Amino acid sequence: MTKISIITIGDELLIGQVIDTNSAWMAQELNKAGFWVTRRVAIGDGRSDILKALDEESSFAEIILITGGLGPTADDITKPVLCEYFNTTLVINEEALENVKNIFIKILQRPMIERNLKQAEVPASCTVIQNKRGTAPGMLFEKNGRIFVSMPGVPHEMKGMMTDSVIPFLKKSFATSFISHRTLLTAGIGESSLADHIQDFEEALPQQIRLAYLPNYGMVRLRLTANANQAGGLETELDLLFDDLKSRVSQWLVTDEDITLQEALGKLLTARKQTMSTAESCTGGYVAHLITSIPGSSAYFTGSVIAYDNEIKKKMLNVEPGILSAHGAVSEETVRAMVSGAIQNLKTDYALATSGIMGPGGGSEDKPVGTVWIAAGNAHEVITQKLWFRFDRQRNTELTAANVLNLLRRFILSRSL
Amino acid sequence: MTKISIITIGDELLIGQVIDTNSAWMAQELNKAGFWVTRRVAIGDGRSDILKALDEESSFAEIILITGGLGPTADDITKPVLCEYFNTTLVINEEALENVKNIFIKILQRPMIERNLKQAEVPASCTVIQNKRGTAPGMLFEKNGRIFVSMPGVPHEMKGMMTDSVIPFLKKSFATSFISHRTLLTAGIGESSLADHIQDFEEALPQQIRLAYLPNYGMVRLRLTANANQAGGLETELDLLFDDLKSRVSQWLVTDEDITLQEALGKLLTARKQTMSTAESCTGGYVAHLITSIPGSSAYFTGSVIAYDNEIKKKMLNVEPGILSAHGAVSEETVRAMVSGAIQNLKTDYALATSGIMGPGGGSEDKPVGTVWIAAGNAHEVITQKLWFRFDRQRNTELTAANVLNLLRRFILSRSL
Repeated sequence: MTKISIITIGDELLIGQVIDTNSAWMAQELNKAGFWVTRRVAIGDGRSDILKALDEESSFAEIILITGGLGPTADDITKPVLCEYFNTTLVINEEALENVKNIFIKILQRPMIERNLKQAEVPASCTVIQNKRGTAPGMLFEKNGRIFVSMPGVPHEMKGMMTDSVIPFLKKSFATSFISHRTLLTAGIGESSLADHIQDFEEALPQQIRLAYLPNYGMVRLRLTANANQAGGLETELDLLFDDLKSRVSQWLVTDEDITLQEALGKLLTARKQTMSTAESCTGGYVAHLITSIPGSSAYFTGSVIAYDNEIKKKMLNVEPGILSAHGAVSEETVRAMVSGAIQNLKTDYALATSGIMGPGGGSEDKPVGTVWIAAGNAHEVITQKLWFRFDRQRNTELTAANVLNLLRRFILSRSL
Repeated sequence: MTKISIITIGDELLIGQVIDTNSAWMAQELNKAGFWVTRRVAIGDGRSDILKALDEESSFAEIILITGGLGPTADDITKPVLCEYFNTTLVINEEALENVKNIFIKILQRPMIERNLKQAEVPASCTVIQNKRGTAPGMLFEKNGRIFVSMPGVPHEMKGMMTDSVIPFLKKSFATSFISHRTLLTAGIGESSLADHIQDFEEALPQQIRLAYLPNYGMVRLRLTANANQAGGLETELDLLFDDLKSRVSQWLVTDEDITLQEALGKLLTARKQTMSTAESCTGGYVAHLITSIPGSSAYFTGSVIAYDNEIKKKMLNVEPGILSAHGAVSEETVRAMVSGAIQNLKTDYALATSGIMGPGGGSEDKPVGTVWIAAGNAHEVITQKLWFRFDRQRNTELTAANVLNLLRRFILSRSL
């Protein structure tokens, strides 16, 4: 099997200022093309660390993909270090120069300075990969039968090069494997109990197919992966095994695709030609953001009222002042009224609502930090659930969002069309 | 200087199913404690890959921090591989066993199965780090003067162990360095022009202080980092240099702290005891989510209307039907009316609004995908800006959010108190 290693370069990765999302995207796309990433290494902007990583990774991987450190400023040293490693010098690439000029003169309409022109310099021995989305060109090198590709760390620039140039080149030049995944999402059962429940299934799996458990936000994702030199009927075998797995976990099954809860909800609403809205207090727009991050969500999502302040709960969601004064904002009665108000005012078939104390402040003995009420329903019925989380603000928000999306999904499924 | 390497274990990291946020958090906390992370390596759930990484990383690093692969299921193999590497066997740890029982019986109130009890097994030669937030204990090993710490991959469990046990232990056992960062955020100038503008400054920096450029979302963050064996007046020197840097970039300065735009806006509103709301179409709640992700934001943020549907723009934000029919939803007139409607209905001093076409669908010749209008203002005046992005839905949303938060920030700064 062809081995790939990804090297990411930049001090910002080692001091935690930036989260590396590039590697995950690259790995997904490489899998689709039949390549398996064996290792990922992150190092700082230091000459010796870069040289050491190039040596070590090329000792076992046939393909070494490098991102980062190609900017126009002095802290970006990848290009001179690559020259040293491949024993070559920098020369101007005419096509890259035209691209830099075009970006500054036509698109940015900003004066171009000497420093920008330097972006068009590349090591003489490399094959240049033009950057259609930015100024720094990509560079492809060959050494001792290994392929090295250096790309900018800016995500959309790297993505353009990978899709248009790097992956097509790798597919042409290296043996691809058969790699295929099937993923399903469960809710309402812990990882251990799930593993016990499907132990027979797991033990009977053939050698080329592996099962993985990915617990997150109170749900567990199960992934079957086939990885072999050749397909040889594995796709069919994977399908059969996946069907078996689905029937074994059917009572906890949320979706049998590798999609998010909001995508599953969107598919359900699209199939039923129905609409929804959100009335959010403690999640502060996060649920609406998750829903609207899906292209085409405007077909089933009309909008939201984010009611952080109680006055907005009253005015924009018709929550009666008596409910708030008798039960408080974080109560079953309030989220129930928020759902009804959203359905009335935002004119949708369904709505969901959240109200809780996300922390770190705002808790009381009665309602400690992490207390959350959620609700979902239609014009005739509203169901509610009380949650209690013991985490930080971010995780409390994420867990609330996952739970309320699933509450609405279950509510919709329980209705006949 | 003490060298640290982080090894993260899990196939999900190599196929791109999960984005690694643990390493960034660990690096930040280690920096605060005076440690510098030299390398990060991500590998799959494979015996030989884990053994190879343990060997390679311990060849140069004194401290090797390992996360992942400690779950109760068959795909989690870190514990047996650690036994092999440290030539020891698994034994039950009584305190960890009590912890597992307590979690299942008292907190989860779920039946405990054999598999859960196995979570309390640890290699005989390790020092156990109890897990106050989950069932898998941490393990600390010593070999040839190197310290190896294995922790669960679940973020909040790993964080608890790092804060309570690992970092205090490392500070006691190893030499710490002086590491200090100063970060500022600029907007409205490109990375290259900025670098040219402060070239003198950069060239005159002393050896122990480095300048880094972090461009993102149309803004550039500048970071000064001092890294030396001893403080020796470096903190003062860093402050003086940072003051110099700030004055050199003052016309583009957004904030002189390592905070986000939404935090800068929150500080401004808090200082002025004023309030804001959002009226979002294309950002679909993302701006509200960014604002409410900050603890204490309820002091200055009252709420939002997410008006994906034009009917909601009319009904909840008082946008006159004539404006929508004459100019369309993505227009200067509409975002202007949305700001005024939000200020009226959500009763705030300021409001911001967004309306645009985020893609991939929905574009026209007149208004191609990526066309966005943003607005910000108070009851007396509204300022607007037209944006045009050429990226994907996610990046278009993030860029719109950054721009509209900055538009409101500049609007507020331009008002006297």
